[in-house]
Amino acid sequence: MQQGFLLILSGPSGAGKNTVLDAVRRRCPDVVYSISATTRPRRPMEEEGRNYFFLTREEFERRITAGEFLEWAEFCGNYYGTPIGFICESLARGEVVVMDIDIQGARQVRDKMPEAILVFLLPPTMAELEKRLRGRSSDSDAAIKRRLETALDELKAGIEYDYVVCNDKVERAAAKLEAIITAERCRVRRSEYFQVVKDIVGEQGVMRQDDESAAH
Amino acid sequence: MQQGFLLILSGPSGAGKNTVLDAVRRRCPDVVYSISATTRPRRPMEEEGRNYFFLTREEFERRITAGEFLEWAEFCGNYYGTPIGFICESLARGEVVVMDIDIQGARQVRDKMPEAILVFLLPPTMAELEKRLRGRSSDSDAAIKRRLETALDELKAGIEYDYVVCNDKVERAAAKLEAIITAERCRVRRSEYFQVVKDIVGEQGVMRQDDESAAH
Repeated sequence: MQQGFLLILSGPSGAGKNTVLDAVRRRCPDVVYSISATTRPRRPMEEEGRNYFFLTREEFERRITAGEFLEWAEFCGNYYGTPIGFICESLARGEVVVMDIDIQGARQVRDKMPEAILVFLLPPTMAELEKRLRGRSSDSDAAIKRRLETALDELKAGIEYDYVVCNDKVERAAAKLEAIITAERCRVRRSEYFQVVKDIVGEQGVMRQDDESAAH
Repeated sequence: MQQGFLLILSGPSGAGKNTVLDAVRRRCPDVVYSISATTRPRRPMEEEGRNYFFLTREEFERRITAGEFLEWAEFCGNYYGTPIGFICESLARGEVVVMDIDIQGARQVRDKMPEAILVFLLPPTMAELEKRLRGRSSDSDAAIKRRLETALDELKAGIEYDYVVCNDKVERAAAKLEAIITAERCRVRRSEYFQVVKDIVGEQGVMRQDDESAAH
């Protein structure tokens, strides 16, 4: 069976991760999406089990202690985390799992799963990024400035990633992500072909006599 | 400027490299194709400079001595080689260069250009491979048997490659190759973004004070 993999999408706040992921979801119906757990209150348009799993602080902390998160963090007094069970079960079935996560989270995941594919989504320009951030009229100037500074720091972190996709047009960015998923599915080391040939040739790529004769 | 790269396509004889490459050519008009030089006689449908550069033995040997081949080999008394000039000029312009080459040649190229992307094209099954090889009615049974044995050896070599694409349907295989090209174009280390950020952050990913102040 072909091996699955975990694809992590990060990017500065305002790069447009959610819009691009919605387009990827339409293009790649066979890819599964990791859903985070959080203790922050549910917003009006959000659905339990679709946007987040909404947990109480007590339940979240119980799961931290039980080792049920691939990564977790606390922001502004709320917990956010990635349930590990769903990801491991999906990978074991050979599926591609996509998750949207910030840079600190991505580093935690990469340390635990070095085979994960890291994709960094870039806003077209910093001016565009500022416009997008300012677009949320609900936020104060100080909040916007803080978010821009964080975004600049995050831009630098992107060089630790495997791929970079510029979100100049949503469908173009989604098409690039789809291509990355297709290409990573063709990786020799994850292929059935690799498993079969390795059994014949052996780990070192050297023909072993016992395998030679066993093949007849 | 985004950096170009060299993509090498290999596969057992009969995997259908030429048919797939023709389809890739239609899908990716902005990719350039390396053309080999050879001393073998031109066949009726072949064109100078499109299928091959046809050279005399004397001229080919002069170019070997002058170091003008990325790789070269002698098969059945004829020389075959990849002119290095065209590839280096194309890469310097940031272009993607695709070349179709056998496994020995691919190894030579990878040793000289470790950044090259290696794609291995698989026939759907060995039975299909045999059918395709037998399909060339001009060849003797002994020639077919020899080619099948070579193909089996080549199948094992594929595990040294980066990607494996199964040629179950020509257009599907071409679409996967197109996706690999698109994905490799998104590699962080080849991106303009990477160059810009590296200038700010420094090679080690550590912010340098002089770059910090120079940026203001």
